[in-house]
Amino acid sequence: MRISELSRVSGVPTATIKYYLREKLLPDGRLTSATQAQYDQAHVDRLRLIRALLGPGGLSVARARRVLEAVDDAGTPTMELLGIAHCALVGPAAPDRDLGRADGLLRRWGWSIDEQDRDGRAALLDALEAIDAAGFDLPDGAVDGYARAMLEVATMELDHLPDDSPEAAVRYVVLGTVLNEPLILALRRLAEKHVTSRRFAPEGGGGAGPAAR
Amino acid sequence: MRISELSRVSGVPTATIKYYLREKLLPDGRLTSATQAQYDQAHVDRLRLIRALLGPGGLSVARARRVLEAVDDAGTPTMELLGIAHCALVGPAAPDRDLGRADGLLRRWGWSIDEQDRDGRAALLDALEAIDAAGFDLPDGAVDGYARAMLEVATMELDHLPDDSPEAAVRYVVLGTVLNEPLILALRRLAEKHVTSRRFAPEGGGGAGPAAR
Repeated sequence: MRISELSRVSGVPTATIKYYLREKLLPDGRLTSATQAQYDQAHVDRLRLIRALLGPGGLSVARARRVLEAVDDAGTPTMELLGIAHCALVGPAAPDRDLGRADGLLRRWGWSIDEQDRDGRAALLDALEAIDAAGFDLPDGAVDGYARAMLEVATMELDHLPDDSPEAAVRYVVLGTVLNEPLILALRRLAEKHVTSRRFAPEGGGGAGPAAR
Repeated sequence: MRISELSRVSGVPTATIKYYLREKLLPDGRLTSATQAQYDQAHVDRLRLIRALLGPGGLSVARARRVLEAVDDAGTPTMELLGIAHCALVGPAAPDRDLGRADGLLRRWGWSIDEQDRDGRAALLDALEAIDAAGFDLPDGAVDGYARAMLEVATMELDHLPDDSPEAAVRYVVLGTVLNEPLILALRRLAEKHVTSRRFAPEGGGGAGPAAR
């Protein structure tokens, strides 16, 4: 198909497609004359991935390019590919940052996270420090409880990892990580409402739990 | 203490404290002369809460004020208070939006969410539609799996709900909902790395799972 058709099928404006071509996010089409190129279904799929990375993913063009290069490089081992995908999604940790508190938690849970991989531990620390700064006391055991629930979630997610191609695996991890975050948070808030309504339903409203006041 | 001392203790600039006073987020101090007022520990605590709501919480001043009014109003039943706190954290749903897909899921899980309460279901729908728009196919059962994990999380969270005062309960829900989201997401990403490294560790690296390639 020509670029106008690619634009129609993908819903991405032609000018934007040209920008992605210039930025090397989208591979060139097959040249059929000096000024015309042909595109195929692979370009449509790639465009959807690019839109997901730059849109919901919130990645910069440079970060998206790094992820796409990893997807396209057939020589990268799966674990490294998935690591690149993950790391593109978080900002880098300051090199002199003391990550001891995060390390202590990871040791307690027996989670094996590469020593070199500081970004994820820094994100955990950021979250804990924001909670401290707000003067919010996490109940005892809450962090462990969250960790347990997230280990279940991650195990389920990795059970579904496509094993037909590295491209499919990375796409699954990047999109699943980023796109499912709002889903998980929306479900958490609904679950909180459900549990709240069960516990604090007004008298006669069918609530099983004790009324709080 | 005087406003300069309140600023020092809380770490909030005096000009910002005066802004919160004008916006009725922070209650007035006790007037000791025509131009001087005294503040106490309650003001320090309230400032921390305001900073949490406007900072990590990302609430507008108007939304923060609504939450704080609910906290201060001793006559509001707990369930309504917690509902107000929750609703302040999500944008309102368009009134004509078809929420049938979300309703279907909630029915399947037996979650009781008030029919009038459209915001949470709209957030669920937004998340699902963003996933669809990106062309990402959620594996069968993934939404059910997330819902199960989040029900566990919410049950644990509500188990820890302080029952000494409505103020404490609302503060717990608002701060816990907002501040713990980055914590939950950071833990999920770390858990994914841990599970990935267990499954895809290089030969001889001690990994138990099969190598993907």
